[in-house]
Amino acid sequence: MQNAVINNKMNDTFLKACRGDDVDYTPVWLMRQAGPFLSRYRKVLAKVDFLTACRTPEIAAEITIQPVDDLGVDAAIFYSDITTTVVPMGMDLSYVPGKGPVYANPVRTREDADRLRVPEDVADGLGFVFAAQQICARELANKVPLIGFAGAPFTVAAYMIEGAASHTHVNTRRMAFGDPTTFAVLMEKVTRQTTNYLRRQAEAGANALMLFDSNAGMLGPRDYRELNLPYVKRILADLANTGVPLIYFGLGQHDTLAEIAACGADMIGIDFRKDLRSAVEQLGPAVSVQGNIEPYVFFETRERMERRVAETLSGATGARGHVFNLGHGVPADAPEAQVKALVDAVHRQSAR
Amino acid sequence: MQNAVINNKMNDTFLKACRGDDVDYTPVWLMRQAGPFLSRYRKVLAKVDFLTACRTPEIAAEITIQPVDDLGVDAAIFYSDITTTVVPMGMDLSYVPGKGPVYANPVRTREDADRLRVPEDVADGLGFVFAAQQICARELANKVPLIGFAGAPFTVAAYMIEGAASHTHVNTRRMAFGDPTTFAVLMEKVTRQTTNYLRRQAEAGANALMLFDSNAGMLGPRDYRELNLPYVKRILADLANTGVPLIYFGLGQHDTLAEIAACGADMIGIDFRKDLRSAVEQLGPAVSVQGNIEPYVFFETRERMERRVAETLSGATGARGHVFNLGHGVPADAPEAQVKALVDAVHRQSAR
Repeated sequence: MQNAVINNKMNDTFLKACRGDDVDYTPVWLMRQAGPFLSRYRKVLAKVDFLTACRTPEIAAEITIQPVDDLGVDAAIFYSDITTTVVPMGMDLSYVPGKGPVYANPVRTREDADRLRVPEDVADGLGFVFAAQQICARELANKVPLIGFAGAPFTVAAYMIEGAASHTHVNTRRMAFGDPTTFAVLMEKVTRQTTNYLRRQAEAGANALMLFDSNAGMLGPRDYRELNLPYVKRILADLANTGVPLIYFGLGQHDTLAEIAACGADMIGIDFRKDLRSAVEQLGPAVSVQGNIEPYVFFETRERMERRVAETLSGATGARGHVFNLGHGVPADAPEAQVKALVDAVHRQSAR
Repeated sequence: MQNAVINNKMNDTFLKACRGDDVDYTPVWLMRQAGPFLSRYRKVLAKVDFLTACRTPEIAAEITIQPVDDLGVDAAIFYSDITTTVVPMGMDLSYVPGKGPVYANPVRTREDADRLRVPEDVADGLGFVFAAQQICARELANKVPLIGFAGAPFTVAAYMIEGAASHTHVNTRRMAFGDPTTFAVLMEKVTRQTTNYLRRQAEAGANALMLFDSNAGMLGPRDYRELNLPYVKRILADLANTGVPLIYFGLGQHDTLAEIAACGADMIGIDFRKDLRSAVEQLGPAVSVQGNIEPYVFFETRERMERRVAETLSGATGARGHVFNLGHGVPADAPEAQVKALVDAVHRQSAR
């Protein structure tokens, strides 16, 4: 394993903003920037299916790098899916068009949870990820940093329990409240696997690590504190010695930001449903902030979009550092020219 | 049309709490209290389909009253669906098992929006609602108040645009941001129909009126203020002279509560994702609060559920008035005995 490649040709504005160091302009990348709104992405995905793309190092690396060249963003995010991480634990994953990733063997009982294993070597079943990241790190060394990522344990556990994307999370809630012991067994194992997975990504060349907690808002503040946040904290504490910036994004958690600020991350992602100014206030001066423009801003006129970029930049005033991003992923049908124009607008408007 | 029936045999604790008057205990009702977790409800719905139940006054009234008798709640909420209100405007509604209510002719273009009509007489196509409410008002006169309701215009418009329940609301967001004129035409019409519909419910016997804005959280604070809240305010201002308490529930709006407090409602519903104590602080002393225990609390042990009831009651300390409720609907598979036990616990624990 090689260590993170950072040379003096790399644009490290993103890493500086993560740490709260001075920057010449506000760096920007976009959640789902490697997505179907990008014409080159669509060309690749016309030839291979989603899981094959994730599992073929050359293809995953190509898709990861596309938006850096096509949009001019200040960071690349590794192309993968949060559902792949736990396949080596015994989850039977397939991709069902129209439904997305599906596990054929959802975790519903104590027996199901007991059966899950945490491989001693995380490359066992996930070697394709680290191989792809080594390619990315090499190719991006003269360009921008690579963000490695994983789903946060609660979000991944919810997916394992439901077996597929769910809006209601009926089974997850039933288990979390009605069978807390089984839920804890599951969370423990997912937490260990996630820690190993992220550490290895830093070793493979990721320059920053991000935990996506897309289901964080499934629980109210009280239960989030008890059933979710402690596991996030444990992972981030374990990863502190990787030396790379750590990012946490707890979608839908709007009332616990003061506690989230102390979770061990260098930067906290904020979704578009939260007022950025109030988020910065609640987070305080110890962490940087990432976010949070409305993702459908791409459908506004160029003029209105420019004005909203200014509002978002201004909303981050007082933050230790700010990485501009959307408050959710780029819509699949966003006009590519508008996405590029937003990246340019952030750079132009924020130039010191 | 008869006016709201309130006699001295009615338990009016709920109405008092809405207005912030002194009460002997905290009143409680539950969103979706007339739902499949109730054995008597399941018996009725085994014989008729959902839309037939809504459209048959005797059946809708029976289902509305069941939880009053079976659970001992302090208010009845009229059994209906927010999608029915706009059928007379020209929407083609059917019920698809597994998908829920579906409109065959979603509103996507300016032409679609222009074609919608607002009937002069709201009973034109919705007479079954007011007939059912007259039965309810008569049967409930010696029991508890009847809450009439409608979907808030943004929530109903989103349903009309998508044509079915949606998690992503891609078409709604595209229209709201990309075609604001069409969106405004649609919102105007839905607002007028909703106002007429609620006013007539008060005349038919509803003792309180509630606006359910289940999609309020689809937009961030900035866009909610511009695209949603003004229409809510207009409806509530128009209904002020009905004399019945007005309730607004904006699911997922957590950062705009100070503005929501001034929307013209007597009471504001809070979802379970918001800390109740901070909600009460933001709402201030001019409105009562309704909510907001975690709906899956029914799957906890009786002892833990009791403790959480105490926490929720305590969270409302300082509110002008408090109506206990869930922060979302009763789960379909909640154990009926637990639901009844929660209602009892609220009454017992809150007795002054």
